[in-house]
Amino acid sequence: METLPSYAEDIYGGDSPSISMLSEVAAARKITIVGGSIPEKASGKVFNTCCVIGPDGQILAEHRKIDIPGDITLKESDTFTDVGRIGIGICHDIRFPELAMLYRSKGAHLICYPSAFNMSTGELLWDLMQKSRAVDNQLFVATCSPARDPNANSDYMIRGHSSLIGPFGEVLAAAGHEEATVIGGMDLSTIQSTRENLPLEMQSRGDLYRLVDVLVNDSMKSRSDLCREMPA
Amino acid sequence: METLPSYAEDIYGGDSPSISMLSEVAAARKITIVGGSIPEKASGKVFNTCCVIGPDGQILAEHRKIDIPGDITLKESDTFTDVGRIGIGICHDIRFPELAMLYRSKGAHLICYPSAFNMSTGELLWDLMQKSRAVDNQLFVATCSPARDPNANSDYMIRGHSSLIGPFGEVLAAAGHEEATVIGGMDLSTIQSTRENLPLEMQSRGDLYRLVDVLVNDSMKSRSDLCREMPA
Repeated sequence: METLPSYAEDIYGGDSPSISMLSEVAAARKITIVGGSIPEKASGKVFNTCCVIGPDGQILAEHRKIDIPGDITLKESDTFTDVGRIGIGICHDIRFPELAMLYRSKGAHLICYPSAFNMSTGELLWDLMQKSRAVDNQLFVATCSPARDPNANSDYMIRGHSSLIGPFGEVLAAAGHEEATVIGGMDLSTIQSTRENLPLEMQSRGDLYRLVDVLVNDSMKSRSDLCREMPA
Repeated sequence: METLPSYAEDIYGGDSPSISMLSEVAAARKITIVGGSIPEKASGKVFNTCCVIGPDGQILAEHRKIDIPGDITLKESDTFTDVGRIGIGICHDIRFPELAMLYRSKGAHLICYPSAFNMSTGELLWDLMQKSRAVDNQLFVATCSPARDPNANSDYMIRGHSSLIGPFGEVLAAAGHEEATVIGGMDLSTIQSTRENLPLEMQSRGDLYRLVDVLVNDSMKSRSDLCREMPA
C-alpha cells in the first residue's frame, strides 16, 4: 500500500496550512486566487490538487490532476468566479486538447494550468501547448510554474516562464525563469470579438465529429432511463 | 444561383488538366502525390478539393475542404497509401483540432494540409497550428503553401513556408517564402516510439470526454436500430 507523504494536506479537514494561508490572503484582499497545486490526502490516497479560493476566503472549486484512467475521482473543475468562469488543469493535463475543449463548451473564459514543466519538454512544448489551447478555444490561458533553481540537486530542472496568453495566442504577460510577480490584464470582451471575427464554433462540423462530455452525457442517459422506467 | 468559374475542373470527367498532369507524373515516377488543392466542379457546385494520386496514376482519395456546416458533402478524406496512411485537410481545416484527432483515431501517420495562409494570420498561427496538430496527435504534419509573390496585386499576400513537422513538434524540413523544392524524410517508427514514451492515448480520459466520429457512430446506430427492428 502506498504511504501517504507526511506533508500531504487534508484540504477540508481545517488543518491545511496552504489552504489557510490562501484563504487568509483572499479574504484580506477580497480577491479570487487560483492557488497553485498541493499534495492533497483524501480517502487514504494522495492527489495533486489545485484550489480556487473566493474573496470570502472559501474554497470555490478544486481540481485534481487528471492522470491515469480510473485512478482518480473527478471533482468539479470549472467554476464561475467574480473574475469570470475559470477552468483548471494541472501540468500534464495541458497535453489533452479535449479537456480544454470541454471547458470552452462549458463557457470558461480562462483556463489556468499550474505546472512544473522541466527544461527539455518545457522548452519544446510549453509555449506551443499554452498558445494552442488558447487559440483553438478562443479564450485566455494562464500557466504558473515554480521558478528555476539552477542549484537544485535534481535531474528535474524546472523551466519557469509562467505566462498569460490571449485568445489569439498573444503573450499578455510572462515571467522569466527567476522568481517574479507578473501582472497581466484580461479584457474578457476580446473573447467575444475574436469569436465574432472567426466563428470557429459555428464552423465546426457537428455532423462529422462531436466531443462528448461523458459525465453530463451519462447523467442525461440516466435521467432518460429513469423516465422510461417510471410508470406513465 | 452561383456561377461556376470557368477554370473549375470536373475531376472524374476525364478532362481535368490538373488531375491529368498529376496522374501522368505519379505513374511515370511510380510515386504517391498529394496534389495540392484545385477548384472542383461537381453536381453544379464548386469545391476546394485535394486529390491523392497513387503510383498507378489513379485517384486514391479526394478531400473537399470542410467549410461551413451543411454546405458540403463529405468525401472520404483519409487513405492508405504505399507511404503510410494519410489524412487530408485544406487550409482553414487545420484550425479544427477535432479533424486531426479523427485522423489520428483512424490510424493516420501523416496529415497533409495544402494551404494558402496570408501574412497576418500565417505569421501568428501557422507554425503554432501545424506543430500542435503534430504534437497533440503524435504524428507527422505536412503543410504546402504557394510561394509568396511580393509583386502580386492583391490584399491577400501569401506567407509561404511549407513545412514538414515530426510527432514531437520538430521541424524536419521547411521552405522559405520563395518557390522551392523541399525534401524531408519521415521515419514512421518515431510515431511508435513517441507514443511509447508518452502514451497520451492511453492516458486520455474516456470516462470524462470522448470524441465521436459522427459518420461511423451514425452508421453503428443505424445497424443497432436495424437489429432491434429485426424479428428475433
